[in-house]
Amino acid sequence: MLIVMHSDATTEQVEDVLKLIRDLGFKPHAMPGATRTAIGVTGNPGPIDPGNFEFMPGVAEAIRVSKPYKLVSRDLKHEDSVIKVGEFNIGGSQPAIIAGPCAVESFEQTMEIAEVVAANGVNFFRGGAFKPRTSPYSFQGLGEEGLKILAEVRNRFGMRIVTEVVDPENVDLVEQYADVLQIGARNMQNFSLLRRIGQTRKPVMLKRGMSATLDELLLAAEYIMSEGNYEVILCERGVRTFADHTRNTLDLSIVPAVQGLSHLPIIVDPSHGTGRRDKVTPLARAAIAVGADGIMVEVHCHPERALSDGPQALLPDMFTKLVEEVRSIHQVIEQVEANKLN
Amino acid sequence: MLIVMHSDATTEQVEDVLKLIRDLGFKPHAMPGATRTAIGVTGNPGPIDPGNFEFMPGVAEAIRVSKPYKLVSRDLKHEDSVIKVGEFNIGGSQPAIIAGPCAVESFEQTMEIAEVVAANGVNFFRGGAFKPRTSPYSFQGLGEEGLKILAEVRNRFGMRIVTEVVDPENVDLVEQYADVLQIGARNMQNFSLLRRIGQTRKPVMLKRGMSATLDELLLAAEYIMSEGNYEVILCERGVRTFADHTRNTLDLSIVPAVQGLSHLPIIVDPSHGTGRRDKVTPLARAAIAVGADGIMVEVHCHPERALSDGPQALLPDMFTKLVEEVRSIHQVIEQVEANKLN
Amino acid sequence: MLIVMHSDATTEQVEDVLKLIRDLGFKPHAMPGATRTAIGVTGNPGPIDPGNFEFMPGVAEAIRVSKPYKLVSRDLKHEDSVIKVGEFNIGGSQPAIIAGPCAVESFEQTMEIAEVVAANGVNFFRGGAFKPRTSPYSFQGLGEEGLKILAEVRNRFGMRIVTEVVDPENVDLVEQYADVLQIGARNMQNFSLLRRIGQTRKPVMLKRGMSATLDELLLAAEYIMSEGNYEVILCERGVRTFADHTRNTLDLSIVPAVQGLSHLPIIVDPSHGTGRRDKVTPLARAAIAVGADGIMVEVHCHPERALSDGPQALLPDMFTKLVEEVRSIHQVIEQVEANKLN
Amino acid sequence: MLIVMHSDATTEQVEDVLKLIRDLGFKPHAMPGATRTAIGVTGNPGPIDPGNFEFMPGVAEAIRVSKPYKLVSRDLKHEDSVIKVGEFNIGGSQPAIIAGPCAVESFEQTMEIAEVVAANGVNFFRGGAFKPRTSPYSFQGLGEEGLKILAEVRNRFGMRIVTEVVDPENVDLVEQYADVLQIGARNMQNFSLLRRIGQTRKPVMLKRGMSATLDELLLAAEYIMSEGNYEVILCERGVRTFADHTRNTLDLSIVPAVQGLSHLPIIVDPSHGTGRRDKVTPLARAAIAVGADGIMVEVHCHPERALSDGPQALLPDMFTKLVEEVRSIHQVIEQVEANKLN
Repeated sequence: MLIVMHSDATTEQVEDVLKLIRDLGFKPHAMPGATRTAIGVTGNPGPIDPGNFEFMPGVAEAIRVSKPYKLVSRDLKHEDSVIKVGEFNIGGSQPAIIAGPCAVESFEQTMEIAEVVAANGVNFFRGGAFKPRTSPYSFQGLGEEGLKILAEVRNRFGMRIVTEVVDPENVDLVEQYADVLQIGARNMQNFSLLRRIGQTRKPVMLKRGMSATLDELLLAAEYIMSEGNYEVILCERGVRTFADHTRNTLDLSIVPAVQGLSHLPIIVDPSHGTGRRDKVTPLARAAIAVGADGIMVEVHCHPERALSDGPQALLPDMFTKLVEEVRSIHQVIEQVEANKLN
Repeated sequence: MLIVMHSDATTEQVEDVLKLIRDLGFKPHAMPGATRTAIGVTGNPGPIDPGNFEFMPGVAEAIRVSKPYKLVSRDLKHEDSVIKVGEFNIGGSQPAIIAGPCAVESFEQTMEIAEVVAANGVNFFRGGAFKPRTSPYSFQGLGEEGLKILAEVRNRFGMRIVTEVVDPENVDLVEQYADVLQIGARNMQNFSLLRRIGQTRKPVMLKRGMSATLDELLLAAEYIMSEGNYEVILCERGVRTFADHTRNTLDLSIVPAVQGLSHLPIIVDPSHGTGRRDKVTPLARAAIAVGADGIMVEVHCHPERALSDGPQALLPDMFTKLVEEVRSIHQVIEQVEANKLN
Repeated sequence: MLIVMHSDATTEQVEDVLKLIRDLGFKPHAMPGATRTAIGVTGNPGPIDPGNFEFMPGVAEAIRVSKPYKLVSRDLKHEDSVIKVGEFNIGGSQPAIIAGPCAVESFEQTMEIAEVVAANGVNFFRGGAFKPRTSPYSFQGLGEEGLKILAEVRNRFGMRIVTEVVDPENVDLVEQYADVLQIGARNMQNFSLLRRIGQTRKPVMLKRGMSATLDELLLAAEYIMSEGNYEVILCERGVRTFADHTRNTLDLSIVPAVQGLSHLPIIVDPSHGTGRRDKVTPLARAAIAVGADGIMVEVHCHPERALSDGPQALLPDMFTKLVEEVRSIHQVIEQVEANKLN
Repeated sequence: MLIVMHSDATTEQVEDVLKLIRDLGFKPHAMPGATRTAIGVTGNPGPIDPGNFEFMPGVAEAIRVSKPYKLVSRDLKHEDSVIKVGEFNIGGSQPAIIAGPCAVESFEQTMEIAEVVAANGVNFFRGGAFKPRTSPYSFQGLGEEGLKILAEVRNRFGMRIVTEVVDPENVDLVEQYADVLQIGARNMQNFSLLRRIGQTRKPVMLKRGMSATLDELLLAAEYIMSEGNYEVILCERGVRTFADHTRNTLDLSIVPAVQGLSHLPIIVDPSHGTGRRDKVTPLARAAIAVGADGIMVEVHCHPERALSDGPQALLPDMFTKLVEEVRSIHQVIEQVEANKLN
């Protein structure tokens, strides 16, 4: 059920609707938009009678939702969501660039890379302190020590920190240090982790699973939002196919597909999406051209010594070029979109 | 590192080796076999010098392991592992049949199905009390109430209970009621769950992820075993492809592939593997013919009313036929294998 | 349009219907069944009015066909088609075994393998004289010389010859020597080749394309049948997926899927389906257990010297075992099916 | 074998090398480059001794080729190939835009679309006169009548014509009317068609098969080139995956992958690549941003009445926007590439 308020509905009228939803034993999700507020209802075991709501003061419409997802849907919120991360945004007019090493390996390695990233005017720094690795014997990350190094990057360079959380038990810990909580591809359907993250109030970056459909991606976001955390950023990172010239096959068509169905921002990770350094920059350009809200890329000053995913890390000068190219292409896209509106 | 003991090594000699491994700060995993004991070593940050071990009394060989997995490997244990579940086995000469509803929906539904399953002489009953569902709004299982119903099935019918655990936090709870802990496809790379399950001493059924490679499946099992739980059963349940005549594409070739590399038993789930009732029986026959150690199938007395996956559930009389056919084919395979040995 | 005749319709009544179809400018396809004849109509640009036919003497029903395929459909012919190849059958009660080298390489190599195959009581010999190769620089087959060697195999051993035709221009030539014309996976949608083959009256073995859906496979068969050649055998040979433990992923679920929709027989090629010798026998057993009408396997006496696909060729003694196992499993399936009828 | 001539080698010296290659019974393929000529050798059954060539006057190097393809390789020709089509180019500094209907349906339909396409300053017109259709009962194209309509488009609007050839027998016919011969995805491994096209001297557009690997695509081009036709343009059109939000999954990473290995130009078809009108423009932008040499898109004035693939055809005003956007993005890419060279 989706309840759309009139554009001139008062705060009291909105509150009355929220109260009735709670009184019926359901959960209201208010989504204020540019022109009007909409309220999603979850927690109902079956369909709700719209008649309960449609004659309440301030209510414009009460709509049954036929799609399997509700809160992620553009039906609920027409405008693009812009996720605030401290003083910076993901979504909206500027493409977000998120960069850093695959894993936080040491203080020195991280600071060296952070300096390169910051020097390019980038606002978001990534780095894994907890690494989900295919083998139990691979480097699993520095844990809290890594989180402290990331916090120091924020202190020194003012960049906001994106880092992965792999376990419901670590959410409290990671939340203390991170600005954006990342959920990796392998955990896209780790529903207990999704619910736990949904109880935080930190922005979440949700990566598409290796063989997830569009509906499954949106429903994974819905798990988070249904717990009350609406600050979700989606991320395409390549899917599994028979093709062997890249590690994964980057599926850029999901960007316009998401944008048609959902108000959530979506970014692209061409580093995991290709797994090969020489393909990261062209695919990053393509990601911006297709309309993504940003990119996430891996940078390493000595990739031959990286403890994970060295072959896909950009060298510092490659990263500088990439940032320039991405910004140039974004300007064109912005003009193009502006022309469309005129 | 893999240390192979002489066939006549004494218990003291084995203990001495285990002690040295612990003293070096590593973790020993003793795997007694029919003719000799082998000991896997994990927890070492880099290669170990075989010279530490190869001149110890009772040691036949100390071998560096080049594959990414160790404890799952046939290099460590030559004989097929047989997993004991109470008085029954999975692996070994008889094919295990595991059957029951997708989800435990109610006491009556479960007992009705259990009666059908037990009447066919089947030893293992399956049913989900915690259901990982794509949508947060779908039926998520009865939780502990469901586990209690499953325990009652064991009491009444003597069947052993296979049920899924979806969350590290629930492991303690599920362990109290279940005989085999199932890890679902979506959680195959939920590494914190794998580690937590590895700390239990209950047999584990690990389902292959929707787009998992053979190496990834074996390494997921390695996560469990590296924590000390060696009672792992693998399960093929279909992978994602472009094909649309079944819900998933059942990959039976993974059965001989696993059997070549690993000592662990592997069973096949043709219910999830096809998603269509009329294809379950032929694919169950094929699973036994390809050499699988058993099958897991869904049965429901009123699939049109099932709360999940009704279209793939067998009706009682279909299930009876399936059990007969599976047993007949297994007899042929057994003779065939016996002939090979002669 | 599908016209079903009464079971006691006379030959004249059938002829009258065929004549009317031709007079309307369409193409009739009479399919005599065990109890009644059905007539498919193709060549009509749009729907035909059933009223043209349903009151003609001997006509039981005139049915509009909603599926995209007509002549392959079980709606047209309820009984399983049995394809006669000389004195032998493909389809029906006995599983067909087709075996031989990937490519005819020389007279000696071929006769040596043929002797092995024939010694196992096998009725069909395969071998490529025209090889579709990924590289223009690979061995492309012996051409007509290869066909002559195959004809000599028939003369000496009495086996029927299955060989590939890759080009509409070679159909006349191959038809002179072969008993079954094979269309390879790469040519499944080579529509001009399909049409040309449809104009012959030799049985055709049509292999599923590497990423063909069930509908595409059936429509490729429909291309052949729409030209008047109804003797089509389908063949599953594995599809492309991300999985890397076999060369292709054998999709055995297509066997019951085809059998549900079509009267055509379907066999399985586990040699191309796995690409690895050690997986051919288990998958051949599974193919028979799933209900396939036969198998096609590659045999080579010296696979290490084979000019193509050596790693998937069975050695002579492996082949002998395979034939035994396949026949044993088929006996069980036959009893099982017999029980179902009782 | 690849023979690289000195930059100051004389025509006679090149001729002497070509003659020796022919005298040895092999086939020479001279590829003049900006600074020096290289000569590929094919038709040799095994390795050739470089000693035959390396001391000849004018020869800089004779190199054995380890890759399975030779003539498509950048090893043979370092510079990007630019394919001349009349007065226009595919490859080189300007992105080629190829547009038109999926199928030529009638004179009026075609001229109406051609007018739209030409009005946007586009140089290449596409349209199918022979359509490879999954069903034998679908519209198969107007044949020669369609080719005549396309020729009239060239006469009236000066655009060059790209049209598909589906059959070796039709090559002569299509060659009379077309400027670029297209080979469709289903025929990428129709080797007799590839060879026959290789004997023409018309430029060829070769579409990637639905599940073709990079190597298979390059080797399909090698088939054409090994017959002496070096004017090959590659085309990415999407591959088959499990994803269901688009008809195919467009694999843009193949563009830089091809450009690393081959001198041939590569374009992208986002119409077949997505199958949905609303995704064509964003993916066309992405294709240019990733560095493709052009795009091919479908345009229709009345897509709801199109005889094939209506849902993916752009409306005229969408096409105009697309052309603008593609050109704007190309300018950025050009500057970016120019900066790289400085």
